[in-house]
Amino acid sequence: MLRLTAIMADKVITFYDFPSKKDGVEGWNPFPARSKIQRHPLSKPSGFEYPDVELTLKAAGIPPTTQRPNGKPWYTLPAIVDPSTGVALADSFAIAEYLDKTYPDKPLLMPSHTKALQTAFNEAVLAHVRPIFPFVLVKFCGLVHPVSEEYFRRTRIVLFGKSVDEMVPQGENAKEEWKKLEEGFGKIAGWMKEDEFVMGDTVSFADFVVGGWLILSACLGKR
Amino acid sequence: MLRLTAIMADKVITFYDFPSKKDGVEGWNPFPARSKIQRHPLSKPSGFEYPDVELTLKAAGIPPTTQRPNGKPWYTLPAIVDPSTGVALADSFAIAEYLDKTYPDKPLLMPSHTKALQTAFNEAVLAHVRPIFPFVLVKFCGLVHPVSEEYFRRTRIVLFGKSVDEMVPQGENAKEEWKKLEEGFGKIAGWMKEDEFVMGDTVSFADFVVGGWLILSACLGKR
Repeated sequence: MLRLTAIMADKVITFYDFPSKKDGVEGWNPFPARSKIQRHPLSKPSGFEYPDVELTLKAAGIPPTTQRPNGKPWYTLPAIVDPSTGVALADSFAIAEYLDKTYPDKPLLMPSHTKALQTAFNEAVLAHVRPIFPFVLVKFCGLVHPVSEEYFRRTRIVLFGKSVDEMVPQGENAKEEWKKLEEGFGKIAGWMKEDEFVMGDTVSFADFVVGGWLILSACLGKR
Repeated sequence: MLRLTAIMADKVITFYDFPSKKDGVEGWNPFPARSKIQRHPLSKPSGFEYPDVELTLKAAGIPPTTQRPNGKPWYTLPAIVDPSTGVALADSFAIAEYLDKTYPDKPLLMPSHTKALQTAFNEAVLAHVRPIFPFVLVKFCGLVHPVSEEYFRRTRIVLFGKSVDEMVPQGENAKEEWKKLEEGFGKIAGWMKEDEFVMGDTVSFADFVVGGWLILSACLGKR
């Protein structure tokens, strides 16, 4: 049985990630389960762009992650199809949960029954780094191919009522929002104190959550 | 050395908690470390009231927890003095941390290096249950002696700019705030899924955080 599991685990997991036009910035969109999924043989479909996400995921049998404000299903990346189990799903947290449950022999993303704590951590972190969005959305446009950029810009206007360029904070407002963001990161650092990882010396989902936001911050470059 | 520790641990910890005028509602103010501290021989000073907190804590050598909006030091309960170590401190989280570090032989409140996760959990929970405050503050007044009630009412006006009676949501606003609170508790329940405790089958600080808010909700009685 163990041997069978080992063989099954060797099947190639399809991993749908965000497209990028820049070399070496694959995986610019942070995804906490990446650490664990990279331990599997992977197939990464390429050539699809933002406007293709819905059709691609539907075709692969991956259900939508949530609903758009207009009530329509919302298909998001990252997403996986695991031929060993037939499971097809999207959403970073759901994928992490699935990988831990299905491959407990690989280092757990949510060790010591910390699933609920990790969920709350993810949410508390988001509340602190929220001011990053208006700064960073426009930067995404420089990372993706023109067809994705056009789609991204158009759909953000529908979502936020203004363009990603108009969203970038200016003047005094920029200073205030930047200060909030710095305080937010400071708060998170305060939780960790002098520990190397969120769970002391054990790497977990939470570290990749924090790391993901730091990667995103790096997109901002020097101000 | 082990024997010495055992003897030292038997020294009586002084535990300063909130006063109450009602029988059987001692500990109405939720305090996540209570579970662990109750495993020690305790002395609970009685007879002091809200206006005495600052002087009592100062006299016991317990530092303030934070600052008041006017910049003055803010002394809060719960607080402890542990004669075995000479440690005197306030703040529920700090006390929990101290007890885990000092008495690792008693069940840990933050097991498996989850201190940072528990801090974030505490904060994420607070964000979801925040709508409870305007409903519940006035209820505290019915639990404490008149001298504490007078102090509590007077100081809340300074803090919030209106009385605890005026803060209670009314009409449509009450319905909206109540709905937010229900959704908040729903969200927390969603994190835990079908688990008995936040960390699966292990009791931790997080359970007492949630339990504390449930106790506080019980103060609201039937609406």
